[in-house]
Parts: sequence; C-alpha cells; structure tokens
Amino acid sequence: MNDRLTPAGIQRELPAELLERLTARFGDALSTARAVREQHGRDESPFDVEPPSAVVFCSSTEDVADAVRLCAAHAMPVIAFGAGSSLEGQLLAVQGGVSLDLTRMNRVLEVAADDMLATVQAGVTRLQLNDELRHSGLFFPIDPGADATLGGMSATRASGTNAVRYGTMRENVLALTVVLADGQVVRTGTRARKSSAGYDLTRLFIGSEGTLGIITEITVRLHPQPQAVAAAVCSFPDVASAVDCTIELIQAAVPIARCELMDANAVRAVNAHDALGLPEQPLLLMEFHGSPSGVREQAQTTQEIATGYGGSDFAWADTPEERSRLWKARHHTYLSALQTRPGCRCVTTDTCVPISRLAESINDTVAEADAAGLPYFIVGHVGDGNFHVGFLIDPKQPAERDLAERLNASLVRRALRLGGTCTGEHGVGLHKQEFLREEAGDQAIGLMRALKQALDPAGILNPGKIFR
Amino acid sequence: MNDRLTPAGIQRELPAELLERLTARFGDALSTARAVREQHGRDESPFDVEPPSAVVFCSSTEDVADAVRLCAAHAMPVIAFGAGSSLEGQLLAVQGGVSLDLTRMNRVLEVAADDMLATVQAGVTRLQLNDELRHSGLFFPIDPGADATLGGMSATRASGTNAVRYGTMRENVLALTVVLADGQVVRTGTRARKSSAGYDLTRLFIGSEGTLGIITEITVRLHPQPQAVAAAVCSFPDVASAVDCTIELIQAAVPIARCELMDANAVRAVNAHDALGLPEQPLLLMEFHGSPSGVREQAQTTQEIATGYGGSDFAWADTPEERSRLWKARHHTYLSALQTRPGCRCVTTDTCVPISRLAESINDTVAEADAAGLPYFIVGHVGDGNFHVGFLIDPKQPAERDLAERLNASLVRRALRLGGTCTGEHGVGLHKQEFLREEAGDQAIGLMRALKQALDPAGILNPGKIFR
Repeated sequence: MNDRLTPAGIQRELPAELLERLTARFGDALSTARAVREQHGRDESPFDVEPPSAVVFCSSTEDVADAVRLCAAHAMPVIAFGAGSSLEGQLLAVQGGVSLDLTRMNRVLEVAADDMLATVQAGVTRLQLNDELRHSGLFFPIDPGADATLGGMSATRASGTNAVRYGTMRENVLALTVVLADGQVVRTGTRARKSSAGYDLTRLFIGSEGTLGIITEITVRLHPQPQAVAAAVCSFPDVASAVDCTIELIQAAVPIARCELMDANAVRAVNAHDALGLPEQPLLLMEFHGSPSGVREQAQTTQEIATGYGGSDFAWADTPEERSRLWKARHHTYLSALQTRPGCRCVTTDTCVPISRLAESINDTVAEADAAGLPYFIVGHVGDGNFHVGFLIDPKQPAERDLAERLNASLVRRALRLGGTCTGEHGVGLHKQEFLREEAGDQAIGLMRALKQALDPAGILNPGKIFR
Repeated sequence: MNDRLTPAGIQRELPAELLERLTARFGDALSTARAVREQHGRDESPFDVEPPSAVVFCSSTEDVADAVRLCAAHAMPVIAFGAGSSLEGQLLAVQGGVSLDLTRMNRVLEVAADDMLATVQAGVTRLQLNDELRHSGLFFPIDPGADATLGGMSATRASGTNAVRYGTMRENVLALTVVLADGQVVRTGTRARKSSAGYDLTRLFIGSEGTLGIITEITVRLHPQPQAVAAAVCSFPDVASAVDCTIELIQAAVPIARCELMDANAVRAVNAHDALGLPEQPLLLMEFHGSPSGVREQAQTTQEIATGYGGSDFAWADTPEERSRLWKARHHTYLSALQTRPGCRCVTTDTCVPISRLAESINDTVAEADAAGLPYFIVGHVGDGNFHVGFLIDPKQPAERDLAERLNASLVRRALRLGGTCTGEHGVGLHKQEFLREEAGDQAIGLMRALKQALDPAGILNPGKIFR
C-alpha cells in the first residue's frame, strides 16, 4: 500500500529532535508504544498501512496548535484521530507522521437551548452529545452508523439516517475552531443561523478530511425533539418496490424523518444479531416526526403509498423502547453483517444518485452482486438517494478483494453516469481518489489542489488523502 | 469613493488593444456608450462610483470565459452584472474594468421534476423560474426583495422570507458552472442531494460576490408546492412582543414557512403604496405550509402563542389572490418606504443574531433610531434572527448619511457582541469590509485573502470587494 502512496519531500521517520521537543511539551500525553501506534493506525477500512510514528493525546486547541507547530518545523505529517471509525482510510499514516488523538477533548462546552445550538470539543461523540441534551427538549440529528466524534463527522461531511429531513453536517454546523498548517487558530462562523459575511470558511473545512486544517471545536444546530414520533417497518416483495415507494413518498412531500432500506441479507444479519424476527425480505424502516395528528397523517399517507407497491406486514413501533431497539439494530447492521462471515472484512460502497435513478442504480447493482457470488448486504438512506453495499471479503483471499473492488468500480461509474456522486457521506480518503477525479473533472481537482497548496503549502496535513 | 479604494497594479483605463479584441470577439454585444455604462455602474447601494469602461452582454458560458480571458491578458477587472439589485455596492467598478452583463443568459436549461431540481443560466430571475415551474407542482423558495437573478443570489448567498423553513442559497444550490480568473470553466457538484466528494467548491463560490469566479449556471433544489397554504397578519402592541412571539414559535417547533416582522413605519409605507388598510402598528406576516390539517394545526398553535403576547386583529388570507397581495406588499416595502420621502436614498442594515438576542437587538436599535430622528423603517426575517433597518437619507445632506452610518455601526457592533453577523443576506460588498474584519478576526481574513490569492492571483475578479 505504502509503495503506491510515496511521500513527496515529507519526513517519514520521526527525527530525534522532534521527538525530544514533543516529549518536552507533552510528557505522558505522547506515546511511541507500538500498541498505541497500531491502535491509531487502523480504521474500519480494509487497508493495512504502517502505523504513525507517535501519538499525541491532545486535551485542548492549544495542545493541537503546539503539536502542529512542532511537527510543521520538521515537515512531519499530522493526522487527527477521533473514534477511529472512518471507512475510507482517512486516518491512516500513509506518509508516516504523528497521530493527534482528540478523544480527550470530550467536553460539551455549551448548550444554548434558547438559540438551539451547542458548542463541543472535537472529541465529543454524537451519542454523548445527545445524552447531554436529554433534558433540554432538543437533539442533534446527524447519526452515522458508528458513534463517531463530531470532529470526525465534520471532517468527512457525515450524515446518516436523519439527513432526508434534517440535512447533513454541511447544513448543521454553524461555526468551527480550526488549527491551520502553521499552528494558527482560526474561528469560522458565528452563532447566527445564516450569514453572507465573506467566504464560507466553515464549509471549506467541512468534508476536507483533515487536509486543510484540524477541527478542534464545533458549534452545531440543534433541533426541537418532536412532540410525537412513530416508527414503522414495512416489508416489500423486492428492493425495487421499496425504492419506488420511497421516491413517491419524497415526491408527495411527506416530511418523513428517516427512510431506510435494508435488503434481505441485511435483515437476516440483524435478525441473527438482535433477535428481531423480521420477515427476511427487503424492508423500509421509517420514522415520522411532528405533532401527534401530523404524525398520524404522515403515517396514514405512507401506509397508503406503501400498499400500492406491495408493502405488507406494516408494523408500528410506538414506544421509545421498541423504536430504540429497531434503530439500534439498523445501526448494528454493519457489525451484524461482519459476524455472518467470521474473520471477514467489509468493502463498503457509498454512492448517492438523483432519486429518480435510485431504483435503476440499485437493481443493476443487485444483479451484478448476485452474479459475482460474493456475500453482500445493502442498506440505504434511500430518501437521499444514498445506499451502501457491504461486500464481505476474506482478507486472506486477494481475489475476493479484487472482485469487490471491481464491483464497486462498476457501481460508482454507474452512479456517475446517472448524475450522482462516488461518496454520499463516507468521504474520499484513500479509496475513492480516482473516482473523485472522474466525478469532479480535472478543472475541479486543479481547484482543490490550489486550495490545498494555499492552506498547506508544505503538505503536512493528512497528506495522501482526497488526492495525491 | 474611488480615492480610498485605490487599485493595486490593476489597469483602470481600457487599453485600445483590449477594446479592439473585445470588439472583434463580441461586436454589437460590446458597448462603451455612457448611458449603458452608467446603467451598469449603479446598484441599490447609496454609493456613487465611476461606471465601468465597457459592458459586454454575454449570452453563454463561453462568452463569459472569452471575455475574462481577454481582460485577464490586460489585468483588467471584470465584474458580473445581473439584475443590478445588490445593496452593498457589489457591482460597482471601484477599480475600473469591464462589466459582464449576464441578463441575456436567461434560459431555464432543465427542470427535472422527478429529482426536484432545475438548472438555469445565471441571468434567470427568481420570478421567471417560479413562473416556469408553475405547472410542475414544485417551486423555488428563495426570495430576496428584488426580482434578482439566480447568479447574483448565488454570489451574495441570498435568502429572503422563506429561509426559516427552506434555507438560503447555501442550502439550495447543488452545483455550479463557474468561469475562473484565467477563463477556465469549472463544474462543481453533481445532481445528488448530498456528497462527501472532496472540498465543497460549490459553497466556496456561494457568497464570494464575484471575487473568486463568475457563476454562469446554477443547479438548484426545488421543493414540492405545499398541499395547503395559509397566510395571516397579526398586529402587536410593540416590536418586542412580536419578536418574543416569534422566538416562542421557533422554540415550539412550529414549522412556520415565513415569519416576517414589519414595524409601524413599514406598515404605514405599504398601506400608502398598496392601499392595504392594515392597522399601523407592528405586525407579523406569517405563512404556513403543509397538509390541510397540518396548516390548520400550525395556525391554531400560532394564534394561541400570539395571543399570549398581545397579538390582535389576526387576519387570514385564504385565497391565493389575498396572499399574493400581502406578500407583494411585503416585497414592496423598500420601494414603498423610498416613496415616503421623495428623492431619498436608503442605507440598509442587515444584521442577524442568535434568536434569543433578537428582541434586545431590535429594541436597542429602535431606541437609538428614534433618538436620532432620522426617518427609518424595520422589516425582519425574524424567524432567522435577521432584520433590516432602512434609514431614509437625503443624499444631498452628508450629515444624514454620516448619521445613518453611525447608527448602522452601532447596530452592527451590538450584533457582533451578541454573537451575530454584520450581514445575514446582503453580503459585504464595499460597505461592510471593516465590520467583516471585526466579525471574522484577522486570522479568518488572512485565510480569505489566501483563498483569493490562490484563485485570482492578479486580482481581476471584482477587485475591492469583501476586503481590500
């Protein structure tokens, strides 16, 4: 892996002088122990890369700024580390360097309930934030599968099951504190809900995967907990019917909060893992938010539309406990699926297409995956046109990884032909650089490179990611 | 004005050679007539600046690219021109240059109803787009006061009365075609509703006021026309009560689509202009979108909350004609107010604050404006925390402009102290550069300058705007 991602004028090995300075500044918060480095040298991607040379456990923006400044003086790469749940190799030290672990930056700095916003340190996770909001009447809706940190979610422009109604990190971040490549600290944005004050620096960093700056604090929008919530599961004869049902729901302006597809393989996996006893056929898992009568109305319209597409076994989860059980199972799909093939690793796809092309996109994908014979499952945030195929590969069989990559390439190119994107929410990392080039074109890549060059001329911020 | 905005290495006068080349390329679509240049040398701001040296009427992205390329070869500034409705001097040729008039680029290129998106040329106006969408079941919600072009609205990150529910240009643009400083054409974004594919180039250009590139095509999200719509006017004893009512509506998660404040002065102006006969006291003009029962429920909750704040004379506009009459009057406020003082010009403020600080912000502003004795009116997108004071000044009395600017400065600094922004939707232009610096800080301004330098090293794209 490292061979094809060769460094360019960047230090690979930690110079003794830098190690001395980092030790002087960080003491016990610096580690070069093999086990610690290895823990910071892998994520949920299927890549194997040498671990970083050292790990600094940062407790504050100042810690991050000092670590970056010291590393910058030695042209040593710095890579932020949160929950370690990135799926595309974003945190891997492909050009060596120092991992900055931000998990000690886990304080919710402020909840301003009246203004429906919160400011958190980058290491706060989404579940932690929602736990702290429990009694505020508010919640933070963005929910990638993992209990990711808000710093990592910002850096990858994450979304999740609520995006169809509440948007992604792009729409839900008001302001950031960011450490730049020279150790300067910049604050972007204000507490106002909207602004036309100059360039949108906040959006510049959202989705930049740690290559333009290291996000240390995030001010996010919160949303009122809905008065009433109802969740429902509805089974369909095939994936296409479930998708067509979703398209009609969106076009009928049903303000559905969550609309998740699981194929029969995904249902089988969560049934085994969480003993759910769901019919093992494709299903939509839906949630409705609003006033009690509004939720009733949405549910009724949905049931009518679903019935028209052969939807059956419409089951309601009325209590918070039942709902929580269903959504936990949905969020466990990835882990549940891994357990269906012991020792396997997962190659995950992440295309997002215009909704009118979603059925075609998924159908062709299913046909190719079935023909290939590799175990797989599909889950999808289908209200957004975004779905994931997880190919379960035996890491000891290079042919299986190659096959999964070929299937992924075919799926991505189909998405691009249909006007879609190679990644809806996982980011580019190591894995989608060529697809990004095909999607964005040489001019846009040139522009991205110009931005990178302007903000990180020495190339020390997470080098080798997004583009080379 | 020009004196304090001196050029830096930029051509002021149109060289004969450039004029020749532009004439050869554009023929009749190039004009140097004084009247044409003057029309392209003023906007709705109160600034007087020498007009541009020439105007090129562009009909295509290629026209724009060629014009930029020719001007770039002579380090001659280029400034895009749409409806001419900018409020902060964005289109003024403060360093000379060529105005690129995009109003002939007025084609709606595609309406993809199934995917709820449209692609338009930059000169299409918001009313034109909605007119073309009339029978599609969809609409485009962003509505600044003027019938602005979508190019201009993108470049200033505009919003309007629907932003509280539907977002601003930031949230509603999926993709752009942009001509860069060297004449290269870049396409940003795809037709997918969300993406994590690399840097957010779309958001980089949204709000950049023509200083990073010239937007020539825009792909926007459309929204389903609501099944039911109801509008209502409710009068309040004072501005504070109307604002407090709004805050409670937002915090109660009423999904209100529009919530506009008008003070008694604004009501008087529209009464005179549109013969509305509204009680001449502060009012909220509200609109509710949803299913018929959803709208009834929102309206009922709103009426209950409003009554608690002394809201009275709750009047419903049930027919499309009545609603249209009310909203047209609201959009005419600016022109109506200008007519209350013949010959006056308007200095418009545009702060946006966190909603909990809105009442305080408006109350202190009213007290200062009343004490100053200058005629003024207030309108506000109060659901977003954004409001405008229009000071009606006699342009022949420099003391009045100075007074208006002092009142504006005080109002902006109050907004910044309260965690807000100097501009919610009008942009920075010429007028708010110092406020932007105070708001964003030197680090953030340094970052913006680095971006400008990376994308427009010769400084030919609308120079002298946002920062110097």
